[in-house]
Amino acid sequence: MNLMGIDIGGTKTAACIGNDRGEILASKRMPSASDTIEHYRKQMLELCYETIAKAGLKPEQIDAIGISAPGPLDCKRGVLIAPPNNVGWRDVPIVDMVQKSFKAPVFCNNDANACALAEMLFGEYRGVKNLVYLTFSTGMGGGIIANGELIQGATDTGGEVGHHTLDPNGPLCGCGQRGCWEAYVGGRNVAEQLKAKIRDGNVTTTMVEKAGGIDKIDVRAFEQAAREGDRFAMAEWDMFTDRVAQGIGNLIMILNPDVIVLGTIAIHTGDFVMGPIRDKLPKYTWEWPLKVCKVVPSSLGGKIGDLAALAVAVTGLKHAGQ
Amino acid sequence: MNLMGIDIGGTKTAACIGNDRGEILASKRMPSASDTIEHYRKQMLELCYETIAKAGLKPEQIDAIGISAPGPLDCKRGVLIAPPNNVGWRDVPIVDMVQKSFKAPVFCNNDANACALAEMLFGEYRGVKNLVYLTFSTGMGGGIIANGELIQGATDTGGEVGHHTLDPNGPLCGCGQRGCWEAYVGGRNVAEQLKAKIRDGNVTTTMVEKAGGIDKIDVRAFEQAAREGDRFAMAEWDMFTDRVAQGIGNLIMILNPDVIVLGTIAIHTGDFVMGPIRDKLPKYTWEWPLKVCKVVPSSLGGKIGDLAALAVAVTGLKHAGQ
Repeated sequence: MNLMGIDIGGTKTAACIGNDRGEILASKRMPSASDTIEHYRKQMLELCYETIAKAGLKPEQIDAIGISAPGPLDCKRGVLIAPPNNVGWRDVPIVDMVQKSFKAPVFCNNDANACALAEMLFGEYRGVKNLVYLTFSTGMGGGIIANGELIQGATDTGGEVGHHTLDPNGPLCGCGQRGCWEAYVGGRNVAEQLKAKIRDGNVTTTMVEKAGGIDKIDVRAFEQAAREGDRFAMAEWDMFTDRVAQGIGNLIMILNPDVIVLGTIAIHTGDFVMGPIRDKLPKYTWEWPLKVCKVVPSSLGGKIGDLAALAVAVTGLKHAGQ
Repeated sequence: MNLMGIDIGGTKTAACIGNDRGEILASKRMPSASDTIEHYRKQMLELCYETIAKAGLKPEQIDAIGISAPGPLDCKRGVLIAPPNNVGWRDVPIVDMVQKSFKAPVFCNNDANACALAEMLFGEYRGVKNLVYLTFSTGMGGGIIANGELIQGATDTGGEVGHHTLDPNGPLCGCGQRGCWEAYVGGRNVAEQLKAKIRDGNVTTTMVEKAGGIDKIDVRAFEQAAREGDRFAMAEWDMFTDRVAQGIGNLIMILNPDVIVLGTIAIHTGDFVMGPIRDKLPKYTWEWPLKVCKVVPSSLGGKIGDLAALAVAVTGLKHAGQ
């Protein structure tokens, strides 16, 4: 079976050819930025044809196509509603745009859901029935598998765990709510809050030097300063990992999963972030659901984007009964 | 198809005979309190035989038996681990106790999960794919249906939504954690916190008189005082319903359900509690998942215990492939 995956991100779009065992035969990428949606469509289709040729195949040999794209989106209509990092993209009928050029059925889902499907189908813990994937990146996206099925929800916002409220009096989130999990642990919010604290509090921290200026502070500089014993960074790291643990603990109590897989920050930072999270989890969960739940960084590494799009194709075919 | 349901509670045990359409042919009840587990077993079996006879049936005409019981329990082994309101019951092999006397297969689940199954199979919104049931009683138990399946979880604690953390600095919960949803909204905790505030703060409130003394304050007296304009009660009611809304909002963001059904307090108190909850929900959820999610009191009324046990039998048979 030959599957094509299209992974649409804020900065790049990738196409890949692979199969339902998660083996990738070919992949190519291009920038997502484009003058118009119509121009983007042409470039993306060109990328698809080139990737198919690179795999030694012809378009009619593709059995299904999966698209992984930033939410919010309407999976039934196949429409990207308003991807936050693709300026000017509103109500983009992404599935139709691809479907017109291929015979194979086209399916789409949001990137965090697609990653959860990739972890279930191709990851280290493939085959488990209850799994949560957390993007743990600029934002905190999530995808939930329960009983072996993705929780898509009534309006395709199932798994928007980054916007459950950790404290009604907490910091304002980009989504307009207060005290969302993402407001505490999303990379962008964390960086903004650190900058404000350093400026307003006249704080001395090595973070500034590491980042090359207050304005350039990011999670990487935060982590490095904390690792090297910077007092302010260490205290903030403690609060940061505590809020990560609260959110994960909430998911363990609500969903009782076998595995929680964390992306980006967890992969880059390893035990320095996973250690404190694991230490703090017993505050937020009962003993026995915690005992069985593996809380781990993703093992899929740089391939997760391609595999996520392929997983959307595999799952789409399965639901279509093929 | 003839099904038997056994609904085990802290104070009473009920048996009923019904079918997979939720029609009840006969039901009987008895106190749960008993000198020994062995004595309880004999009384419960007697109750079952009497109920079967009352329905005009013989034991061999029963096709499946469902047990709804207080958690925590181990559904695979069919064991009640430590029901909080049944003193001295530890590791009670409830399924074996019943199975020995009947040919029909016996299934069990915890009461909140069983109620969620009853709502999905027999409730006003039967047939929806994504539903959450909340007990909203002494405690805050929950049962989650996603994609038409109960989220049982890895250790049968799926749906323990009452113990997700609303605020790490919140009040101590009976479970040992701090700031659980149940610590804010479970009837027992609400009453205890009101008593402490009235005593320690030397507060004047009509709640005391309505309850017949500080020690007797319960959610009913709290509600009545708030309804009649008691200032302290009204301010507390506002905070109480806000915390109910925060937890429901979290479930809407995480699960994106079609329906959230609330039991006990919602049924007794109606719009006086549902109104403020609905008013406060937009603080805690995005607009579009909230718009499609019905947040309603249960329509199953006094029959929900019987129907919950029957629903466990129906679901058990389905999973057994019969």
